Amino acid sequence: MADSPSIDELVTGIHNADRARMGQAISLVESELPQHRERSEELLKKLGPAAGKSWRIGITGVPGAGKSSFLEQLGLHITREREEKVAVLAIDPSSPISGGSILGDKTRMNDLARDPRAFIRPSPSGGTFGGVARRSQEIIRICEAAGFQYCFIETVGVGQSEDLVKKLSDVMILLMITGAGDQLQGIKRGIMEVADLVLVNKADGNNVVPAKKTLAELRQSMAMLPVPAHGRPVVTDICTSLDQGDMERIWTHLMDHFNSLIASGWLKENRNAQDRYWVRAQLNEWVQDELDLWLENDPEAAALLKGHSSALPFSRSAELFRRYQKARSTTD
Amino acid sequence: MADSPSIDELVTGIHNADRARMGQAISLVESELPQHRERSEELLKKLGPAAGKSWRIGITGVPGAGKSSFLEQLGLHITREREEKVAVLAIDPSSPISGGSILGDKTRMNDLARDPRAFIRPSPSGGTFGGVARRSQEIIRICEAAGFQYCFIETVGVGQSEDLVKKLSDVMILLMITGAGDQLQGIKRGIMEVADLVLVNKADGNNVVPAKKTLAELRQSMAMLPVPAHGRPVVTDICTSLDQGDMERIWTHLMDHFNSLIASGWLKENRNAQDRYWVRAQLNEWVQDELDLWLENDPEAAALLKGHSSALPFSRSAELFRRYQKARSTTD
Repeated sequence: MADSPSIDELVTGIHNADRARMGQAISLVESELPQHRERSEELLKKLGPAAGKSWRIGITGVPGAGKSSFLEQLGLHITREREEKVAVLAIDPSSPISGGSILGDKTRMNDLARDPRAFIRPSPSGGTFGGVARRSQEIIRICEAAGFQYCFIETVGVGQSEDLVKKLSDVMILLMITGAGDQLQGIKRGIMEVADLVLVNKADGNNVVPAKKTLAELRQSMAMLPVPAHGRPVVTDICTSLDQGDMERIWTHLMDHFNSLIASGWLKENRNAQDRYWVRAQLNEWVQDELDLWLENDPEAAALLKGHSSALPFSRSAELFRRYQKARSTTD
Repeated sequence: MADSPSIDELVTGIHNADRARMGQAISLVESELPQHRERSEELLKKLGPAAGKSWRIGITGVPGAGKSSFLEQLGLHITREREEKVAVLAIDPSSPISGGSILGDKTRMNDLARDPRAFIRPSPSGGTFGGVARRSQEIIRICEAAGFQYCFIETVGVGQSEDLVKKLSDVMILLMITGAGDQLQGIKRGIMEVADLVLVNKADGNNVVPAKKTLAELRQSMAMLPVPAHGRPVVTDICTSLDQGDMERIWTHLMDHFNSLIASGWLKENRNAQDRYWVRAQLNEWVQDELDLWLENDPEAAALLKGHSSALPFSRSAELFRRYQKARSTTD
């Protein structure tokens, strides 16, 4: 980053919701290079007072549940009807595991992407974080400092990323569809337990009656689930991305939910708990990075790790650990 | 461990396959106390030359596939017909996630447990390692040094522990049953890819014909799977724990498999790769332990981690990391 902008230029740009500056700031905080750590810290410190002000909404559902279309229509409702700003941390559909069709990839959220009140940040769906962007926590802060009142965080299909998205969100939306069969039913329980709003999507045309039937079944099976930790019952409804009237209703559900969580104090408490999780996760990552770096740069350590030594793994680990402790005490 | 045995007493006991000494040695290597690390290392070093000589066999399958009965009958075949010694790292059925019935718990592998040529070590099925005992690698070495030629390692049901058991085993057995339905079929592919021997179990009485049909379907769907990395095709068969003749046949499958993997050099290569994995896993664990210990003992660090600080998580992590580096350089 030889001719990279100064931190103050980034901060000013972000406060003006300048897309290019936001992109540069996100690249900086996503960087794995140790020399970018201090710059990232300085940037985030300067953004601090303005961050934390959005409503953070996670969205999950099986591939084919219509997450992108739903997000686009709900986003457009917020930007056009409510005249508020929406950020979307989306899954990059170019990766095979996102489940998006090739046609879908090209047309995905195009209207929302062109909306001046929207900011869409795609992240690769592979990698350690299972589709959730590395440093999503920090990306959300940047969006918040840029004045985006709503931050949506999308999961990749259904699976390992729900837990992470839940740790980034205040409220989770689960999109379901009629006729997704046993496979869906099997996973329902685990995922329904993280959801605040469960919606049977694609309820249009001939699909309205089956969707209502699915909703009724859903309510019956959900009656057996415990009430979420925050005490507010899960909201269930049907919807379609083809009808902006439905988006109005969903938006009202969301607002009611947020107001309730704010009034009870749960939202703040939950964010504090989430912050503690991310503090520790980041610390662990740096401690591991430091170990990786040492292993890469100490040829004898690398040999102990990789070599076909006759020593048992335990002895090799113990020897490596002693060397590591010694190396740190002389170089720190 | 005030009046604990000396390392030499443990080594002598293990070489004599003394059950009490083996148990003490396993408790020592399983200990999380830092002061036991050196003793463990010394013990394993002294066992070294005798370790590594068993055939290590992982076993997995859905709950209800009959893993315990199968292991018991195959174990008894080896101890009685082959007159060789068998160790089993088993899942403790007292934990709810093992899926064992209460009656099953009490009668589980009772005959094998009483066999003087067998050693059964149960491990709790909960915890970080998903049913695989902490330090399983080292427990296997202790069993090998005690002259157990066969080491079986059981997974808890089907799920997260296959990967770990695969990293402990030379050969994996997958037990299937007829009529386990869609749920089983859905997971089949991922698990079949780690298996060397796929058996349709409980093929007795009225179940023989359905089991043969399941076997035929299995072979058809497996024809589409890639050949395993070691180049030897997966063996498929039906079996029942009620017939020792079947155990004879399974034992022959296993021996053919081992002889082929030894002849190709794959077995040794695979163990070297496994050792590298365990060296790194152990090193990571100790590095994390060291961080945990510091966090517990530095009140200001704990406050930064847990406290409701107004600073963003990234800044708190960075501050913690700097403090950690500084603390180590002064105490190391």
